[in-house]
Amino acid sequence: MDRIKVGIIGAGGYGGCGAVELLLGHPDVKIQGLIAKHDTGMLISDLYPHLKGFCDLKIFGTDDEDRPDDFDVVFFATPDGVGQSGAGYWLDRGVKVIDYSGDFRFNDHETYGGYAKRIGRTPEHVSPDLLPGSAYGLTELHREEIAGTDLVGNPGCFAVSCILGLAPALHSGVIEAGSIICDAKTGVSGAGKTPSPSFHYPARYDAINAYKISGHQHVYEVERELGLVAKDDITLTFTPHVVPMTRGILTTIYGQLKEGKGIKDVIEAYEAYYGDETFIRFFGPEVPQTSTNVRGSNYCNLSLNVDERTGKMIVVSMIDNLMKGQAGSAVQNMNVMFGLDETAGLLQPGRYP
Amino acid sequence: MDRIKVGIIGAGGYGGCGAVELLLGHPDVKIQGLIAKHDTGMLISDLYPHLKGFCDLKIFGTDDEDRPDDFDVVFFATPDGVGQSGAGYWLDRGVKVIDYSGDFRFNDHETYGGYAKRIGRTPEHVSPDLLPGSAYGLTELHREEIAGTDLVGNPGCFAVSCILGLAPALHSGVIEAGSIICDAKTGVSGAGKTPSPSFHYPARYDAINAYKISGHQHVYEVERELGLVAKDDITLTFTPHVVPMTRGILTTIYGQLKEGKGIKDVIEAYEAYYGDETFIRFFGPEVPQTSTNVRGSNYCNLSLNVDERTGKMIVVSMIDNLMKGQAGSAVQNMNVMFGLDETAGLLQPGRYP
Amino acid sequence: MDRIKVGIIGAGGYGGCGAVELLLGHPDVKIQGLIAKHDTGMLISDLYPHLKGFCDLKIFGTDDEDRPDDFDVVFFATPDGVGQSGAGYWLDRGVKVIDYSGDFRFNDHETYGGYAKRIGRTPEHVSPDLLPGSAYGLTELHREEIAGTDLVGNPGCFAVSCILGLAPALHSGVIEAGSIICDAKTGVSGAGKTPSPSFHYPARYDAINAYKISGHQHVYEVERELGLVAKDDITLTFTPHVVPMTRGILTTIYGQLKEGKGIKDVIEAYEAYYGDETFIRFFGPEVPQTSTNVRGSNYCNLSLNVDERTGKMIVVSMIDNLMKGQAGSAVQNMNVMFGLDETAGLLQPGRYP
Amino acid sequence: MDRIKVGIIGAGGYGGCGAVELLLGHPDVKIQGLIAKHDTGMLISDLYPHLKGFCDLKIFGTDDEDRPDDFDVVFFATPDGVGQSGAGYWLDRGVKVIDYSGDFRFNDHETYGGYAKRIGRTPEHVSPDLLPGSAYGLTELHREEIAGTDLVGNPGCFAVSCILGLAPALHSGVIEAGSIICDAKTGVSGAGKTPSPSFHYPARYDAINAYKISGHQHVYEVERELGLVAKDDITLTFTPHVVPMTRGILTTIYGQLKEGKGIKDVIEAYEAYYGDETFIRFFGPEVPQTSTNVRGSNYCNLSLNVDERTGKMIVVSMIDNLMKGQAGSAVQNMNVMFGLDETAGLLQPGRYP
Repeated sequence: MDRIKVGIIGAGGYGGCGAVELLLGHPDVKIQGLIAKHDTGMLISDLYPHLKGFCDLKIFGTDDEDRPDDFDVVFFATPDGVGQSGAGYWLDRGVKVIDYSGDFRFNDHETYGGYAKRIGRTPEHVSPDLLPGSAYGLTELHREEIAGTDLVGNPGCFAVSCILGLAPALHSGVIEAGSIICDAKTGVSGAGKTPSPSFHYPARYDAINAYKISGHQHVYEVERELGLVAKDDITLTFTPHVVPMTRGILTTIYGQLKEGKGIKDVIEAYEAYYGDETFIRFFGPEVPQTSTNVRGSNYCNLSLNVDERTGKMIVVSMIDNLMKGQAGSAVQNMNVMFGLDETAGLLQPGRYP
Repeated sequence: MDRIKVGIIGAGGYGGCGAVELLLGHPDVKIQGLIAKHDTGMLISDLYPHLKGFCDLKIFGTDDEDRPDDFDVVFFATPDGVGQSGAGYWLDRGVKVIDYSGDFRFNDHETYGGYAKRIGRTPEHVSPDLLPGSAYGLTELHREEIAGTDLVGNPGCFAVSCILGLAPALHSGVIEAGSIICDAKTGVSGAGKTPSPSFHYPARYDAINAYKISGHQHVYEVERELGLVAKDDITLTFTPHVVPMTRGILTTIYGQLKEGKGIKDVIEAYEAYYGDETFIRFFGPEVPQTSTNVRGSNYCNLSLNVDERTGKMIVVSMIDNLMKGQAGSAVQNMNVMFGLDETAGLLQPGRYP
Repeated sequence: MDRIKVGIIGAGGYGGCGAVELLLGHPDVKIQGLIAKHDTGMLISDLYPHLKGFCDLKIFGTDDEDRPDDFDVVFFATPDGVGQSGAGYWLDRGVKVIDYSGDFRFNDHETYGGYAKRIGRTPEHVSPDLLPGSAYGLTELHREEIAGTDLVGNPGCFAVSCILGLAPALHSGVIEAGSIICDAKTGVSGAGKTPSPSFHYPARYDAINAYKISGHQHVYEVERELGLVAKDDITLTFTPHVVPMTRGILTTIYGQLKEGKGIKDVIEAYEAYYGDETFIRFFGPEVPQTSTNVRGSNYCNLSLNVDERTGKMIVVSMIDNLMKGQAGSAVQNMNVMFGLDETAGLLQPGRYP
Repeated sequence: MDRIKVGIIGAGGYGGCGAVELLLGHPDVKIQGLIAKHDTGMLISDLYPHLKGFCDLKIFGTDDEDRPDDFDVVFFATPDGVGQSGAGYWLDRGVKVIDYSGDFRFNDHETYGGYAKRIGRTPEHVSPDLLPGSAYGLTELHREEIAGTDLVGNPGCFAVSCILGLAPALHSGVIEAGSIICDAKTGVSGAGKTPSPSFHYPARYDAINAYKISGHQHVYEVERELGLVAKDDITLTFTPHVVPMTRGILTTIYGQLKEGKGIKDVIEAYEAYYGDETFIRFFGPEVPQTSTNVRGSNYCNLSLNVDERTGKMIVVSMIDNLMKGQAGSAVQNMNVMFGLDETAGLLQPGRYP
């Protein structure tokens, strides 16, 4: 089979770089072209010198006449608003699209509008007709829809950690649906490549902070997806924190167990729900729940616990925000969309330490 | 007035070092002698070279015949079990005692026994007769008892962050007492100076983990103290995490607001409870809640928030675990015990960045 | 005596913040006013919340009509070019001036011009008539000139580490003057508060780099000062590096010993040169040469070594770039200019760890 | 062809873990067995949970009767002294041996003895008869010997950075052989997995130190190898430093250019010497010399510079100490020993950031 030709739009950011790193090791794929708004004309390996010798492609501007466009799939590694303007062009040409932003995470216009308002954008989607055919790119929950579509909205990094950590509990009904608190801690790379005062090295080392208390936009897709799982409206409390790390999200999830439920029910629910999922690993309370165990890999590690004294289920959910939380999920979705082995290009552990 | 002569037992640990640093700048105090089990015979400035020229006292062994004992107060900067064996000796000689461990945090034998079992020690206190006269050294809550006693049990670092963050809410009754979750994140220095695999630099950088889920010993004194405040039994969920920082604890506290209560009630409750407390600072949600704002100082910063959608009070409580969480509180207690200005030696901001 | 009234221009940067922190603990001084180009109208404690309760002064704009000007001394904590435009105004009113930049580090116009060209500025100084009366603010080398002037050019941070580490060797002539290499490693705070791609947390953690190889501007003042000490022209090799720390400079200095010279001669030379200097501490090779030993204090630690096999003197010189390398030196100079105890406000160890 | 069966002795350390990570992605290899002195009976994925699902082999004890021994090659990822006792056993059975320690870095007994004395061991090698047949495992310099032997002494991490950075300059004679200074900065992982006070997180963050000034053992193999290149005795000055990073070595190398030589000669010398070497990349002074550019990959990046004012060549040599400095070199050597593509299993960029 010919290699699948991938184009990456927004190639200069961490999300584009992560896709390049993974696709270089993918047996069925060729990185065909890089497109971006910034750093155009540079080689990707001048922008990211660790890639020198591995990938020395030029970054083309969005409007360059000679920009490559002979793709089978494009990754929009771009912020909200870009993908919805550009996706139609590619879809019309038979090119599949995976978008990293919130543009295609909601497959009806009204739900998208609610999200858009949260992030201060107009509720009008540029391509509302594309929404019904799109799929939410959390493979473990939407594998069939992803296999059957050409347009995937890759999930938000916090959302991945919360949804994977909660779906079995809500599906099985072991916890009270109204009792959920997600206390999330993320490394700095989730904020992207652009310098800012809060992520300046001297301001960030030895510093933890909470932010957007009760107002983070990812909660919207978490509630949407968990509502679908629970077949009921879900409202939860979500507090993000930034810690002095670069990679990783650890979300500590609290839910009130229903009367009579215990750790055994929790474990059963999670094992039943995930079955043989490659990228989900379970750990009990006796194993240290360290984010570095998923660093550089596409795994989500779940530690299942119950506080007997208070009747709380406590799930610790860990991902690498740039892998399962971004480029790793995108590649996993691409594999499903093309009928490849879902794990192709992703079966590599991170480097430790 | 003659300077108060301070002896520090357990001088070689971070807690002893922190006391030395603070007492050097205290106008009414003289560091009279250093005693320890380890590193005896060394100068404290050989062990901690940053002190060279500031404090070059020799560290005496516990059993050295020529060890200094002409003290007005001794700090036991030692782990559980040491203070309860040694305190009586000093108290009998009219020397005041401030103990860093859990040995004197509970002023009745039964409560102490419950704590001791939690940490795997015998429930029998070595000096049970001393317990009733001891005071819990969280100055803001027990100022009068501390002023009236010669024996203070300095609080645990996590406990300080939780109790200061919750006492006004329970005193005023704005939240449901049974709904509390404390999600705590600490820097590594809280684990002390002894190297361990989990705190080896390569294992700890870029790594966050949860530990002792539902089983940390500090929850015991938190529930004890908050029960006194609420005049009712309190049971809460507490999850500690270690993040790759050296100093600082940030605890995110969740409590269900009672029907009809809102952010205004929360703010009123906290302002009323703390009044003019020097070492408590309030911040609203608009100010970044960064742990570095208390780094190196004796302050507790409290950020007061409400999630309107879920009716949760969310308080972010920040301290420097080695200051308000340890040596700073000890000095503050000493000031109260001797009738000095409570803030003497403590009115210094940390160094930023 | 009335307290000396200090004004800080450029109060919003790390250098201004560092001056505030130190002056708050100075017994003879009052922080009278804060002036800056940015963040005007804010309280300094809104910009640096760790100062809340310690210093809540408003930051005035340079041109605000009601800006305070009742000062005895002003600190220009500003970049090159600002001090030379503003110093005359204050000097004319009898106000002493300490400038952090290179504007007054060279007391003749030609030498200044050479420096200015290095940093891409016009060689014409705005106030050339002020240069002859200015003093280079490395107190240990120019104490008398500093005591006798109203205008001090505070030294560069790298320069402090190099000059203090080399002056005795050149004064005594134990090394070949033409053989010097300074390999310097700095924390990130030396680059100031403004975010940049190279100091973005994800780009900086776990990363070391060399920069401005053979071209850093501080080498100019190092060669100037060492030439004065050696009474001969000095040309040396200087390579700066940035390491993932916030505070601290460690410079490893290499010089070829003259025939017949050894470690004994080196130690004698350094002890003779510095005599009783408070802020210079010596360490032999047996003590770990860690930058944290000067962190947060005004000390320069010098480790003296000789490589017998190659005949090289190896001096490891360590300072806190924001203390002895900046605000600490400024306060030390102020003390000398006003005839105060030179160590006032500076006798405080850092916080460890 | 059947996959090559690899055994790893000392599997539990960072060096063993690094070999596992690389060999998992090697197309021609099978990890056949893990042997160690510590952690025996555990799965490697319990010791290193990031490997769970990738490699779940049991760690056998050295003396376990059922330990695997059906190997084609064994890696001794062990400290000095282990390989020399064990290598003969495997060689006798036709199994190739790659040793990480200094045991086989010197192919004559006298030279080994000199090294052994440096590190405080007896100068008598346990298997002196094996030395003449061993090869020094810096592939770029000893490719032919490595291809022709069954016993390779993998080089020290500092030595790799120094030798690769200096060999062309000495081979071509552009610098004075007696003028060399290597100022090396390493991350903490070079010290291995065992916790120690100096590498305890709170002691190491924000801290740089020099150590073993003029006495580090790696200088011995650097001088040995460079002497072979220069065909003359080489004595140089080497100062190692530890910086608060986990992975990476950056060595700044200084050499006096011979009369009439300049940057053009330097570049020519290096390009000629390395020709088409896959794992050597050159960078000019205009590109930031950041250690993260080699993080997680087998590359050595070399930045070539000349200080015109002082006539110094300044080469900045960067490697990942656990890759080209350890496990990466071992795999590269294995590939050469078995006649495989030298880059097999090694053509993967690290993850950025």
